[in-house]
Amino acid sequence: MFTAFRDHIEKNFPQLLSKPGIVACSGGVDSVVLAHLCTQTGMQISLAHCNFRLRGSDSEEDELFVKKLAEQLDIPQFITHFDTNEYAAAHKLSIQMAARELRYQWFAELMDKEELSWVLTAHHLDDSLETFLINLSRGTGIEGLSGIPPDSNGIIRPLLAFSRAEILQYAREQGIKWREDSSNEETKYLRNKIRHELVPVLKELHPTFLENFRKTQVFLSESAQILSDYTAQLKENLFVPYHQGYKISISSLQELDPLRGYLYELFKEYGFHSWNVMEALLTAMSGKEIHSKTHRLI
Amino acid sequence: MFTAFRDHIEKNFPQLLSKPGIVACSGGVDSVVLAHLCTQTGMQISLAHCNFRLRGSDSEEDELFVKKLAEQLDIPQFITHFDTNEYAAAHKLSIQMAARELRYQWFAELMDKEELSWVLTAHHLDDSLETFLINLSRGTGIEGLSGIPPDSNGIIRPLLAFSRAEILQYAREQGIKWREDSSNEETKYLRNKIRHELVPVLKELHPTFLENFRKTQVFLSESAQILSDYTAQLKENLFVPYHQGYKISISSLQELDPLRGYLYELFKEYGFHSWNVMEALLTAMSGKEIHSKTHRLI
Repeated sequence: MFTAFRDHIEKNFPQLLSKPGIVACSGGVDSVVLAHLCTQTGMQISLAHCNFRLRGSDSEEDELFVKKLAEQLDIPQFITHFDTNEYAAAHKLSIQMAARELRYQWFAELMDKEELSWVLTAHHLDDSLETFLINLSRGTGIEGLSGIPPDSNGIIRPLLAFSRAEILQYAREQGIKWREDSSNEETKYLRNKIRHELVPVLKELHPTFLENFRKTQVFLSESAQILSDYTAQLKENLFVPYHQGYKISISSLQELDPLRGYLYELFKEYGFHSWNVMEALLTAMSGKEIHSKTHRLI
Repeated sequence: MFTAFRDHIEKNFPQLLSKPGIVACSGGVDSVVLAHLCTQTGMQISLAHCNFRLRGSDSEEDELFVKKLAEQLDIPQFITHFDTNEYAAAHKLSIQMAARELRYQWFAELMDKEELSWVLTAHHLDDSLETFLINLSRGTGIEGLSGIPPDSNGIIRPLLAFSRAEILQYAREQGIKWREDSSNEETKYLRNKIRHELVPVLKELHPTFLENFRKTQVFLSESAQILSDYTAQLKENLFVPYHQGYKISISSLQELDPLRGYLYELFKEYGFHSWNVMEALLTAMSGKEIHSKTHRLI
C-alpha cells in the first residue's frame, strides 16, 4: 500500500510534497495509518488532535495515544479541547455537527497561525460508500451521490482511493497500533447498519464492487463539475448585477427546460431550493418576497 | 391507487388519453394491473404479448392467459411468437438482450402497422431501484443512476411512480388474477439478490426510503437532461461539419476541464468511451485512427 499511496500523492496531490501541513488524527486506525504513510513518504506533517470530551476516560486516552504517536514519529503535535456539548446546545446543533464545526474551525485557525498549507483527513473509500448510501436513503441529487470530495478548500483526503480493508491490512502488516473508537457501536447506528448489513451484500453483487464504486464516484464528480461550470456560464447571461443584488428576467427563466432542474442549479448556492424559486416565479406578479437563510427573491 | 394513477396520467402523460396505444402484457401482476388501470381510466388500449418460447408449457399458458384477459377487458390483442434462442445465437446476444431487441422491434412494427401512438410497459419503482443498484454494482455514471426512463421515444412507463407493494395491494383488493413468472427464481440471480437481501435493508435505513429514491431519480434525470442540453450546445461550437463527418479542433478539446468528463459527454453517442478519445488526442500527431463500432476518429 505504501507504493500505491506515494504514487497517488505524486500524481494527484503533488502540493503535499513541497509544503508543510497537518494530519487530523483521532487515534483510530485510518488516521494513524495515514500519519505513518505520510512520514514514510517524507511529507512534512504535524498531528492535530481534537479532544471533544464526549467519552470520559476514553477521550483522555485517545489524546495520550496521539501525543505518544507524534513523539514516536518525531513530528510536532497540536492538541485542543472542546466543550462539544455546550457548543451544540448554544448553536442548536447535533453533537455530530457541533464536533464537525469545531474541528474544521480549529484546523483553519491552526493553518493560519502555524503557516501550514493543508489538512489531511483519513476518510477512505468505504466512508464514501456509506455517505453515498446515507444520502441515497434520504433522497438526494448528483452532489449527494458524488461522495466525499478528495479535495475541498485545502482539506485533502488522500485515502479515498483506498478501502478500509487495505488500510487494516497495512496496519497489521506493519505492526501499527491504534485505538478502537468506542463511539462506533453506540452512536453511529446508520453507518453501522450500512457497514455490517448492506455493504457485504453489495460486495456480493459484483466481484470488484468497491473498485467499480470508486469509478462511479469519479464519473459523478466530473459530471457535477461540468454542470457547475455550465451553471456559472448561464448565470453570467441571466443574472444582471443591480444595486446590491441581481436583476433576473423571469421570462428567460421560464424558458428553461427542465425548469425545476435549472432553477435548482442556479439558485442552490443562495440557499433557495427550487420549490422556493418556483413559488417566487408563480407569485412574481404579486410582489411577494421569498426568503432563504441568506438571500431574498423579490 | 386508481385515482393516483389517473392523476399521474392526466398530469404527466395527457397524450395517452387522446390516442390509441398498446399495453405490453406478459401476464405478470404488473402488466395485468396496468391493463386494468388503463381500461378503467378510459384509455383506448390493445394488449401486446410476446411468446419467447423459453419456458415450455409455461410460455403457452402465459399466452392463453393474456388472450383471455383481452377478451375479459373487451379489447384487441396482438400476440407474436419468437424463436429467441435462435435469434440470440445468430446475433451473438444474451437471451435477455435478444428478447429485449425482439420485443421492441415488434412493438415498433405494430405501432406503425396499426397506427398506434404509444406503448406502455409496466416497469415500476422497485424495478428502477434494482436497475440503479445493478448499474451501481458494475460502476456507472449519471445516466446509469437515473433509472429506467419514464418516457423513451414513445415507450412510456406510467407505473414508475408506483411501488411493487402498491401494485400487489391493488391487484389483491380488486381480485385481479395474474400469472407468476416462472423464470423469476431461476434466471434473475442478481435482481433476486437485490430484491430479497438488499432492498429490505435499504428500506430500514429511512422510513420513506422508496419515496426518497423516487425523488432522487427525478433530480438525477433532470441533471442528466441539463448536461445533455449543454453538450449539444458545446457540439455546435466544437464540431464543424466537414465532408461526411466533423472537423474538431484538438486544442479546443484540450482546454476542457475536467477533460475526460467532457470527452465522455461529447463522444458517447458515437460509441466512443472517453479513453478512446483520450488515446486519439494523445496520438493525434501520429495519424493513428481510433474506431468505435460505428465511427472513427482520424
